[in-house]
Amino acid sequence: MNINKYQDISAIDKEAKKDYIDRHSAFVHCESVAKKGEKFKVKVQVGDEYKHPDDFDHYIAYVQLWNGETQLATAHFVAGALGNQPENLEVDFYIVPQKKMKLTATAYCTKHGLWESDAVVVDVQ
Amino acid sequence: MNINKYQDISAIDKEAKKDYIDRHSAFVHCESVAKKGEKFKVKVQVGDEYKHPDDFDHYIAYVQLWNGETQLATAHFVAGALGNQPENLEVDFYIVPQKKMKLTATAYCTKHGLWESDAVVVDVQ
Amino acid sequence: MNINKYQDISAIDKEAKKDYIDRHSAFVHCESVAKKGEKFKVKVQVGDEYKHPDDFDHYIAYVQLWNGETQLATAHFVAGALGNQPENLEVDFYIVPQKKMKLTATAYCTKHGLWESDAVVVDVQ
Amino acid sequence: MNINKYQDISAIDKEAKKDYIDRHSAFVHCESVAKKGEKFKVKVQVGDEYKHPDDFDHYIAYVQLWNGETQLATAHFVAGALGNQPENLEVDFYIVPQKKMKLTATAYCTKHGLWESDAVVVDVQ
Repeated sequence: MNINKYQDISAIDKEAKKDYIDRHSAFVHCESVAKKGEKFKVKVQVGDEYKHPDDFDHYIAYVQLWNGETQLATAHFVAGALGNQPENLEVDFYIVPQKKMKLTATAYCTKHGLWESDAVVVDVQ
Repeated sequence: MNINKYQDISAIDKEAKKDYIDRHSAFVHCESVAKKGEKFKVKVQVGDEYKHPDDFDHYIAYVQLWNGETQLATAHFVAGALGNQPENLEVDFYIVPQKKMKLTATAYCTKHGLWESDAVVVDVQ
Repeated sequence: MNINKYQDISAIDKEAKKDYIDRHSAFVHCESVAKKGEKFKVKVQVGDEYKHPDDFDHYIAYVQLWNGETQLATAHFVAGALGNQPENLEVDFYIVPQKKMKLTATAYCTKHGLWESDAVVVDVQ
Repeated sequence: MNINKYQDISAIDKEAKKDYIDRHSAFVHCESVAKKGEKFKVKVQVGDEYKHPDDFDHYIAYVQLWNGETQLATAHFVAGALGNQPENLEVDFYIVPQKKMKLTATAYCTKHGLWESDAVVVDVQ
């Protein structure tokens, strides 16, 4: 089993490859600084410029949020939760950080396997 | 295995029982009308006036979002994701509705089992 | 959300209804006595005389093993893990009991919701 | 997030390191040949010569079974399912293969992250 690591699609020429990579890529969106002991919102999104199908035999089944080697949360979706149409899967997790975090997200496509985002460092004050 | 159904705590006398019921109760928060084929945010929260512990041997391990008998999404959390302190677990799911929905949420506490919210009906136009 | 409780199909007349109920029913198979602190095998099976489809838009997505109100283990399967053909989903969990257990299993069908087995009591010596 | 790949512990000198690596390693145990369209048992085990703790703040939370890049099944366990004592987590998945498989298992420890087994190739006839 391999994990596909994030690639910046601006460096990719072929449109089909841009689309393939972007629509599977997981992204972590959050503030860069969190307050210790306070609830902190972290959005995990799949795809940025391109959308992934939500077909019964081809969909994003889950995303996971990691802090370093620790898995904080996982969200599973059924095929059809995104209306059986191309979409950017999104979920907002609320966590309570205690110290500096290095967040990554993974996304699992039922046809094209596991994809990992770039890391996002969050300072906790 | 039983599911604890939502109870309105304003009708409950004893403070400890109010707290016990409220902090385990799942709530669905969303608009009452959605647009067909457009992304729609649904917040699932555990507890309203009272907070649940996030201890290693006692925490909310997952919440599920249901539309009638269909499970749309599940979010798992590890103990510690809420900072090992009492909190109201929250997660925002984004779904794309196609027709009228009857949403409920369930929450699972590792000590006190499964809890189900009241249903929220969402018209889809 | 409702849980369909186990029904003995021998009391049901219509063949289609027998099939519908049986193929969704979860069963717990294990010894009736376990040794305290020793690994103990518990098989969860879905369906007994009838098999459930394993189609992309209609399959058994997960089974859970419960001891009273405590969820011990969950197994998720993807559509296709059973060859996209009708089958009795099976999984063997190994647990280590400490005291008397009351085991139930639940099964989730992506079209027909949640089903719960009869309880199986296991003495632990 | 990194995946710890299997290492043969016979090549490792220090006892503590042998123990650390072995008790986290996932293993796939199954026949080397399967019959097409027939149920096939695959045991996933964590640890071989050494056992992993099952403490509330340190346990194996899930194992996954992969065929190449496709995740076939996942089993989640709660802390305490193995009696809060050191054990080799075990689960038997039953799948129905259609063609040659390359199986791997991953195991997730709540303190030490994700571990991946060696691949096991299964011919399907």
